Amino acid sequence: MVDFIFFISVSGYVIFPKVQLKNPVILSDFYVFQTCVLFIQFIEAIVVLVRQTSHLRVTRALRPIFLVDCRYCGAVRRNLRQIFQSLPPFIDILLLLLFFMVIFAILGFCLFSANSADPYFSTLENSIVSLFVLLTTANFPDVMMPAYSKNRWSCIFFIVYLSIELYFIMNLLLAVVFDTFNGVEKMKFKSLLLHKRSAIEHAFQLLVSRQRPDGVCLKQFDGLMRFYRPRMTPQDRFLTFKALNHSGATMLSLQDFYKFYEVIGLKWKVSFTHCHMIILPGCMLNSPEPEHMVYMCVAGSSSLLTVGVSWTRVVPWSYIIFLTIYGIEVLLKITGLGPLTYFSSGWNLFDFSVTVFAFLGLIALAFDMEPFYFIVVLRPLQLLRLFKIKQRYRNVLDTMFELFPRMASLGLTLIIFYYSFAIVGMEFFADVVYPNCCNTSTVAQSYRQINVTIGNRTMLEEGYYYLNNFNNILSSFVTLFELTVVNNWYITMEGVTSQTTHWSRLYFMTFYIVTMVVMTIIVAFILDAFVFRMNYSRKNREPLDDPEGSKCLESRSSDDMFNKMIFLGRRSRTKCDLSMKMYEEEIQEWYEEYSRTNLQPDETFHRELDSPEASATNSVN
Amino acid sequence: MVDFIFFISVSGYVIFPKVQLKNPVILSDFYVFQTCVLFIQFIEAIVVLVRQTSHLRVTRALRPIFLVDCRYCGAVRRNLRQIFQSLPPFIDILLLLLFFMVIFAILGFCLFSANSADPYFSTLENSIVSLFVLLTTANFPDVMMPAYSKNRWSCIFFIVYLSIELYFIMNLLLAVVFDTFNGVEKMKFKSLLLHKRSAIEHAFQLLVSRQRPDGVCLKQFDGLMRFYRPRMTPQDRFLTFKALNHSGATMLSLQDFYKFYEVIGLKWKVSFTHCHMIILPGCMLNSPEPEHMVYMCVAGSSSLLTVGVSWTRVVPWSYIIFLTIYGIEVLLKITGLGPLTYFSSGWNLFDFSVTVFAFLGLIALAFDMEPFYFIVVLRPLQLLRLFKIKQRYRNVLDTMFELFPRMASLGLTLIIFYYSFAIVGMEFFADVVYPNCCNTSTVAQSYRQINVTIGNRTMLEEGYYYLNNFNNILSSFVTLFELTVVNNWYITMEGVTSQTTHWSRLYFMTFYIVTMVVMTIIVAFILDAFVFRMNYSRKNREPLDDPEGSKCLESRSSDDMFNKMIFLGRRSRTKCDLSMKMYEEEIQEWYEEYSRTNLQPDETFHRELDSPEASATNSVN
Repeated sequence: MVDFIFFISVSGYVIFPKVQLKNPVILSDFYVFQTCVLFIQFIEAIVVLVRQTSHLRVTRALRPIFLVDCRYCGAVRRNLRQIFQSLPPFIDILLLLLFFMVIFAILGFCLFSANSADPYFSTLENSIVSLFVLLTTANFPDVMMPAYSKNRWSCIFFIVYLSIELYFIMNLLLAVVFDTFNGVEKMKFKSLLLHKRSAIEHAFQLLVSRQRPDGVCLKQFDGLMRFYRPRMTPQDRFLTFKALNHSGATMLSLQDFYKFYEVIGLKWKVSFTHCHMIILPGCMLNSPEPEHMVYMCVAGSSSLLTVGVSWTRVVPWSYIIFLTIYGIEVLLKITGLGPLTYFSSGWNLFDFSVTVFAFLGLIALAFDMEPFYFIVVLRPLQLLRLFKIKQRYRNVLDTMFELFPRMASLGLTLIIFYYSFAIVGMEFFADVVYPNCCNTSTVAQSYRQINVTIGNRTMLEEGYYYLNNFNNILSSFVTLFELTVVNNWYITMEGVTSQTTHWSRLYFMTFYIVTMVVMTIIVAFILDAFVFRMNYSRKNREPLDDPEGSKCLESRSSDDMFNKMIFLGRRSRTKCDLSMKMYEEEIQEWYEEYSRTNLQPDETFHRELDSPEASATNSVN
Repeated sequence: MVDFIFFISVSGYVIFPKVQLKNPVILSDFYVFQTCVLFIQFIEAIVVLVRQTSHLRVTRALRPIFLVDCRYCGAVRRNLRQIFQSLPPFIDILLLLLFFMVIFAILGFCLFSANSADPYFSTLENSIVSLFVLLTTANFPDVMMPAYSKNRWSCIFFIVYLSIELYFIMNLLLAVVFDTFNGVEKMKFKSLLLHKRSAIEHAFQLLVSRQRPDGVCLKQFDGLMRFYRPRMTPQDRFLTFKALNHSGATMLSLQDFYKFYEVIGLKWKVSFTHCHMIILPGCMLNSPEPEHMVYMCVAGSSSLLTVGVSWTRVVPWSYIIFLTIYGIEVLLKITGLGPLTYFSSGWNLFDFSVTVFAFLGLIALAFDMEPFYFIVVLRPLQLLRLFKIKQRYRNVLDTMFELFPRMASLGLTLIIFYYSFAIVGMEFFADVVYPNCCNTSTVAQSYRQINVTIGNRTMLEEGYYYLNNFNNILSSFVTLFELTVVNNWYITMEGVTSQTTHWSRLYFMTFYIVTMVVMTIIVAFILDAFVFRMNYSRKNREPLDDPEGSKCLESRSSDDMFNKMIFLGRRSRTKCDLSMKMYEEEIQEWYEEYSRTNLQPDETFHRELDSPEASATNSVN
């Protein structure tokens, strides 16, 4: 019944808005797929209603595709698309991997099946499964041991197999995914860039008046902005116009107008001097030079103290003094910069939370609150301040802050796969493993739960693996996480297999391959982001702008209206800015190519740009 | 006594040649280190002679550094240098990793030590060791299970720990090593390139006569070549001159002379047409078009056959016919191209060995020879032919052929580390583990060897882990390989620790970190080579030259002396050529910078270039 309600609501959500919009996008692959799934679910719901009994409802695993189709899951949708795009080369290498696996399985079966003490190669099926598990190294020395104890030279078989498969072909897989992923990323960036350019040209054509066809005046620009960003203040609109207007003429040329998307995200603030408008001590703390010195002494000595006092309940006065200094610094900065500006920087947030945690620890200690470990753990966190000193750690943490949105969307993608597999697992494997089950399998040991009496003491000897089950969605998620980490995953697989059929292995192997793809892409992505950033900071010798990782743009409005004040616009630097810098030369080529052919950019991006709120920069990230 | 002989021979080998040469290189770090080691070993040898008893001789682990100092180990020496150069950033990130590990260890100890059924967090030392092992995932679900069975939410601790440490910081480590390694590689390439340029300029200055200061004539060039490559024929010398002489003038300008190192490695062959001088069928088989078609049909059908007949002793006629066709093809090619040319190509070697193996299998079957598995395994190898068809597989195998020398040298570097650790392991841990030892440790199960009587059958239940010992050098190598693969390495560690002291863990942890560095570099290297190649083939749209992966250069000598014959020069393409293409733009910058400053390139490369035989191209690879 719940299913039927779900079906009705989803069909209302998916089908009807599309019919209303009469958008050509309705015919894209994704929607065809969605409609098919909906149709299958509809038939299934009717069958369930007619028979009035439940059955294996694996189609529930497909539900997340409706969730993905909301506005907030745009990044997840793009991730899924990228994963499917990097599949063809991935599959090529996977076939190579499996081919060698099968050859080695046959060889292993022929070599080791004579040994009755060797359960890993007793049949050809066992042989293939053993070598598949060996690919993940999860059964490594054990799979070799029976053969190795018979003949010492049999280790060569395993060393050769691992060298070829694990150390060569698996790396090749990573390289291919890494490369394809980068290629797709670059193509996406190019497509978006050209689309923006054509949008700007189109807007320019609409904005220029017939009398003056080579420029946009302030009034027209103001009208555009009132439509494009209704909440912008008139002052900000004027400043944006000024920032675009490099030539100093009264009108914006097309060249000026090309910078539209770079300038539009800036937040404007009055700046009296080059330093921020804060009182002296705050200014001192804000400039990088003394900060380094302060941190070198303070964090160094403080860290020594915290390490020293971590294990006692006695708090030396010096610790409290240092903490007070940190507290004052944080307060000064907040009053000086204002809470909003202060908390918009990742580094300030980091400072603030470390200090607040330290104070919390102190208060907890003062009131003699339990648990004590809470305090003990909070103190070493003070050491995190040290990471601000070294350039490499700053880079690492900066990159982490920048990576975070993307990592979150990749994590969400992984969770969607988890959900689908969890549903299938729950349908097939719920309640199949329990303590002392699986006695027919080779892993019975891990599921055993017996009382052992040693001397006069009775102990419960537990194998615990019965806890890795698919009984409910939370247990399933934990079990799937354990399968993702790979180590000892074959114990769960063999346990479930011994209680069901041999075909269950297909589920676990498929899951391994799917998570391998997703994890490889996550690894490739982290790798790419860091290598990119390190290259970038090497290419532009100066350190990466200011510590807050933001992009500044001055708009010196020397009009009377603003009394010769200098306005500073800032926004956080996105990967788009880095890409602009990295592909500088190629971008010129793309533009030239574009202006020659003047073709419409890729169709797929129409949809993203339909809603003006979804800012273009976000959709690159 | 053996030690003393070793010492005498090595000191004779290391010290005296250096004193003779009076080379400034003698003062380099490496030689100072070598001399120190020699001095320590000398004192030790005297101590051993005086006391007439043996003791722990850990210094034997340092012996490979004398082996490395031979001419054939140049690549290994460079690898070691590169590893030490990428250590500083690696250590930075390692500290970050260890810092989080310690924080989580304290937290884990506080949270889980109350649970008496949990041996993993009972003391702070156990807690740190457990989390170190968890970093390698070797104990994953087990370490979580006792806590998880008490409270289901404790899995969050482990999930957060693994997400931060394994999936984030470990990847960061890979990225940093990858980046540093690439940087060092590029610097080395730049340094070598500039050194070559200065060498060429210097040679040019010496060769030009005073009357004609702007060119080198054939006679002077011939003199140089007779000195530089004494075994070159006069014809080859003339052809090299012609190949350099692009302008067609009688003299070589400096611009022509800059190409010296590119042209010097070419092997010259007469070429009557563009196709090779082979008979018609061979020529047909050699041109790429029909080859593809032939392979598509033949390999496809043959592979189906081989799969079908793999399991029977009956050989269908079609299989023999196909094999005969392959045999004829191989014979035609060998007669057509000549054995030397034929075997110089990796692909031909591949074809040849696959065909020969198939024939061997057939002969073995005809004489009804055992073992049968030999034949069964040889047949599926026929499928390897299919890999020649797809461009991606061709690229993979081409890259593999190119990578091979470098991989071999990296493998040798790894073996040197293995040797050092094996010696230390043998000194400390020889004969410490045996069946049924380690009963006090948590891994006693894995070392147990007992007779179990089930019904009327007596079985030997073996834990086998006592086989992973340090009793001799071969066992040590196998044990260290198992530690490299990481899975279940803690069983070996705990077994040895329970028989010796807690400090033994230091040995295993150090080994893990060292192999992690070396393996990371190997992974980074494979990754780099493939990504590089894929980028390269994308940048130059046409497929990578001819399948043999060689570099052609025509020298059209229209002189009467050679009767208007066309000579083709070829050599295998090295990574140097690829680098030249990739860094094209930067190379121009480097040259400009170099000609401005005209500084001497790096001192370290003097040594490599002292011996003229060690060709410059080799030392880049």
